[in-house]
Amino acid sequence: MSTWAMERIHIRTWAETAPRLVAVAAGRDAADTVIRNGQWVNVHTREILPNSDIAMAEGRIAYVGPDASHCIGPDTEIIEATGRFMIPGLCDAHMHIESGMLTPAEFARAVIPHGTTSMFTDPHEIANVLGLEGVRMMHDEALMQPVNIFTQMPSCAPSAPGLETTGFEIGPEDVAEAMHWPGIIGLGEMMNFPGVVNGSQQMLAEIAATQNAGKTVGGHYASPDLGPAFHAYAAGGPADDHEGTCEADAIARVRQGMRSMMRLGSAWYDVETQITAVTEKGLDPRSFILCTDDCHSGTLVHDGHMNRVVRHAIACGCDPVIALQMATINTATHFGLERELGSIAPGRRADVILTSDLTTLPIEHVIARGQTVARDGQITVDCPHYNWPAHARQTVNLGPARRASDFEIAAADGATSVIANVIGVVENQAPTKALTATLPVKDGIIETDPANDICQIALVERHRATGTTTNALVSGFGYQGKMAMASTVAHDSHHMIVVGTDRENMALAANRLGEVGGGVTVFQDGQEIALVELPIAGLMSDRPASEVAAKAQAMVEAMEACGCTLNNAYMQHSLLALVVIPELRISDLGLVDVTTFELTPVIKAAE
Amino acid sequence: MSTWAMERIHIRTWAETAPRLVAVAAGRDAADTVIRNGQWVNVHTREILPNSDIAMAEGRIAYVGPDASHCIGPDTEIIEATGRFMIPGLCDAHMHIESGMLTPAEFARAVIPHGTTSMFTDPHEIANVLGLEGVRMMHDEALMQPVNIFTQMPSCAPSAPGLETTGFEIGPEDVAEAMHWPGIIGLGEMMNFPGVVNGSQQMLAEIAATQNAGKTVGGHYASPDLGPAFHAYAAGGPADDHEGTCEADAIARVRQGMRSMMRLGSAWYDVETQITAVTEKGLDPRSFILCTDDCHSGTLVHDGHMNRVVRHAIACGCDPVIALQMATINTATHFGLERELGSIAPGRRADVILTSDLTTLPIEHVIARGQTVARDGQITVDCPHYNWPAHARQTVNLGPARRASDFEIAAADGATSVIANVIGVVENQAPTKALTATLPVKDGIIETDPANDICQIALVERHRATGTTTNALVSGFGYQGKMAMASTVAHDSHHMIVVGTDRENMALAANRLGEVGGGVTVFQDGQEIALVELPIAGLMSDRPASEVAAKAQAMVEAMEACGCTLNNAYMQHSLLALVVIPELRISDLGLVDVTTFELTPVIKAAE
Repeated sequence: MSTWAMERIHIRTWAETAPRLVAVAAGRDAADTVIRNGQWVNVHTREILPNSDIAMAEGRIAYVGPDASHCIGPDTEIIEATGRFMIPGLCDAHMHIESGMLTPAEFARAVIPHGTTSMFTDPHEIANVLGLEGVRMMHDEALMQPVNIFTQMPSCAPSAPGLETTGFEIGPEDVAEAMHWPGIIGLGEMMNFPGVVNGSQQMLAEIAATQNAGKTVGGHYASPDLGPAFHAYAAGGPADDHEGTCEADAIARVRQGMRSMMRLGSAWYDVETQITAVTEKGLDPRSFILCTDDCHSGTLVHDGHMNRVVRHAIACGCDPVIALQMATINTATHFGLERELGSIAPGRRADVILTSDLTTLPIEHVIARGQTVARDGQITVDCPHYNWPAHARQTVNLGPARRASDFEIAAADGATSVIANVIGVVENQAPTKALTATLPVKDGIIETDPANDICQIALVERHRATGTTTNALVSGFGYQGKMAMASTVAHDSHHMIVVGTDRENMALAANRLGEVGGGVTVFQDGQEIALVELPIAGLMSDRPASEVAAKAQAMVEAMEACGCTLNNAYMQHSLLALVVIPELRISDLGLVDVTTFELTPVIKAAE
Repeated sequence: MSTWAMERIHIRTWAETAPRLVAVAAGRDAADTVIRNGQWVNVHTREILPNSDIAMAEGRIAYVGPDASHCIGPDTEIIEATGRFMIPGLCDAHMHIESGMLTPAEFARAVIPHGTTSMFTDPHEIANVLGLEGVRMMHDEALMQPVNIFTQMPSCAPSAPGLETTGFEIGPEDVAEAMHWPGIIGLGEMMNFPGVVNGSQQMLAEIAATQNAGKTVGGHYASPDLGPAFHAYAAGGPADDHEGTCEADAIARVRQGMRSMMRLGSAWYDVETQITAVTEKGLDPRSFILCTDDCHSGTLVHDGHMNRVVRHAIACGCDPVIALQMATINTATHFGLERELGSIAPGRRADVILTSDLTTLPIEHVIARGQTVARDGQITVDCPHYNWPAHARQTVNLGPARRASDFEIAAADGATSVIANVIGVVENQAPTKALTATLPVKDGIIETDPANDICQIALVERHRATGTTTNALVSGFGYQGKMAMASTVAHDSHHMIVVGTDRENMALAANRLGEVGGGVTVFQDGQEIALVELPIAGLMSDRPASEVAAKAQAMVEAMEACGCTLNNAYMQHSLLALVVIPELRISDLGLVDVTTFELTPVIKAAE
């Protein structure tokens, strides 16, 4: 692994900087920077201490207390806090950078002005496209940033072995290897919870490799069953879970010694329903943690990141300092980093936010590793880009260009109509419904039924240029006229999902993404009306969040222009190949019945 | 290091046992043991959950919840809790086994019936006598026990470089080596706080070696100064401190991100004065931890161990579950062990206590690693002894036998009396007073002054058989008649301290300890009237605590028979060579003024 490009910042350790920190605290040496006269939000004691100073040196905190005058020299930079609150930089305990359609650098650039200074990221999406190497690229770009981006080694690629083909697979030996990388903090969410419950050797081996390395195993128990299966999952080793959706879920997890990660993502609203375990039931808050899981670039640009989550938790009735603990020290302790970050205390990385109000939480000044990284919403540092190699930008390998005929679904000879299985999209829900519909046949080919909102869906293989196109039917988007929409963000195996009312437009959309290296495109009447280029792994752009968010917004508007009225329409599109969520999905292997975990035919019967 | 005798128990890891734990929790396999129908004291949520079951397998917890019926097979042992509280095994966060005058095995045997199942021990005393090898012997015996004894690598031997000669010294390279041993959990209390504050390269190197190994640095800041010196100490890296004595001390430490360890030892009473930070000031309790530091065998036999501390914390007004958190999960989290012990939760070592009352805390049934280790105050397991080598039992190397004349303090030629410096023992305090007294001279030798309670003290070199005897004077014991008392427990360098009114008796006492390999003896009128044999390093007995406690009690009574009226008389004796506590002490190098850290003569002036 010596060939990896490594331009990462060397963060000098507490041990390396201790002589200087001690000298500054003792008054023998001058601090690099001193913040004066703030209100120190102490997440260890849960106190707010007015008239406090912070002295920083070599990127770490040397002194915090009532008076840092003795740490100030002629070259010390002074930041006047003038009564503002000094809070630790915010931590996102579980998230996927790819969900923002941004590279780690551009994600960092988007969230730093919101006060996020530490992220625990699971590059699960790129793992499906580029395997361990892709994880390493994300990991390496993460380590180049001016804030702390830790990597959780993805645990489940493919998500559904046997039901889909990913670009690469992850196994226990990959996990064991990654545990030696400098930025790996643990194992990414163990989504294969039936595997753990059933004692899957491979899943337990991945967990073992992580535990043996002394690192944290991320959980993902996406079931309401809190009986023996849940207990068996907890006995398997996952140390946290962000899939709880109600108070009972949160309480059950914490009682088992797991940490409850409560998420507020762009489309996840699981804080309000669970935080009552603390605010009403009075449980010890130390095991409750806030995270985002998935944030779209639009959310980052318009609403915020972890500041949005903390604000929301406070709005849900949580004491502000407890809410801040849930986004700072609780997270740091969980990952074994409490002596490194998550509080304003000596020796820790000097990650500090100044804010005038602990309820509305305006992020006025962000310091990371002792350096001002944002002020009043504007970033003030560079977020360096990794030199992504050509093959990471050329992952859309379609083989032969698609023709309209590749999207034809043939009926049996002589049939005039068929009874077909149709994926039914359900508004505001991730699960789909398994519908059936009678569709006409013309020239031996099934026709769609715009009147009943039934159009085509195709899974276009794009990892190995096999030329495979898997066709099926979908209902619920409301598309009218001749259109097609294609996306290489196609959870979790990230082939290409094409949905359309017209096979010519479907071919145009598919080939267009092959041409630009991936992303999302909408075609109407043979013309492209929206495009979000995501050239890196077909998942991410290395352009700024504002630009990507604007294009994503134009893409959603293009979907609407084609008749779509769904909320989260794009997310619904990109989840249609997620063959772990019931009831009916599509994969490169065919139509999948996710109630039986078996392939099922598109045509039930011909008439 | 392959020559170390290692008979330690292999504790199968969570990862190794996960397949079985999962199978038991899922109901596919039977538990080894199930505790039924208890009240689960949940230290994660701070709840008490009635009607709970615990299923254990392979020494770990497989299931804890409302009903473990599905985990029970024909061979499963059933323990009926019948409404009793199920609490996690208690943890002592900082302690010295040697203080009990017992080996690790006998210490374990004494405390297991009190519910202590995890100890964080600093074998600092033996380090002064036998160096790194002595630490390793303690470490190895610790790992042979049926409960968890972790070793903190001693940091400061000698305690006072330049003012005393220890048997061995500890340096950064020793610390770095020890960090690889299986039972090392961190660095023992960094007592050289002036060294840290002044940036001592050696002290910071020891801390760095510990931090680089990802382990916990123990602190010891024994000063009331909470100004820059305290802040500089915190910036140096110690992660906890047990030297606080008042509420302000506790709060100051926790605010700096250190954990406040509040101790109730045989002679330390620092819980009541500090726990108000939680009970009255309402600080977040997570950073507060209970410990004993030093317990005499008598305390262990008659009063208890960590159960005594928790009971006391509750009596001080602390909520019982919070007090239990301070002796379980808080400690585990501090040492990075929260997924290994400190709570009743899946995957953790099955260390569980049954008690009928959460306030008086009777310890009715103790389970460690899934095995019943004590019931109703009686131990039910073996605590194996390490095969201590001969040289660890022959550490009292006096060289030539002492004669009465070795204890003579010569005055200047022709002097009839002298003005002498006298160590003044202060009742109930560790610091001594620097007194002066006028003493008669007879035949050129200083006479003691029984009427004014002034007798002789000698530091007899015993590590290298140099034959050195350092003589001085002491006041405060109240000894009358012809007597002498000698001890090879002589903090911290552990030579031999002899105090007596008569030089013949002093020689007899010193030689007697040379003969038995160390311990404590009291001579009166030429006869031995009490003896505690401590053959291992001159510090410990491998006999049971009850036997040692009885002999220690007889020794205290012998001191009283000689006229001593001090409280903690033996402790006062054994601390007289502790040349880090003011004002006047004795070492093998001479009389030490511990206000200036310089040697000072016994005779100020002759008359």
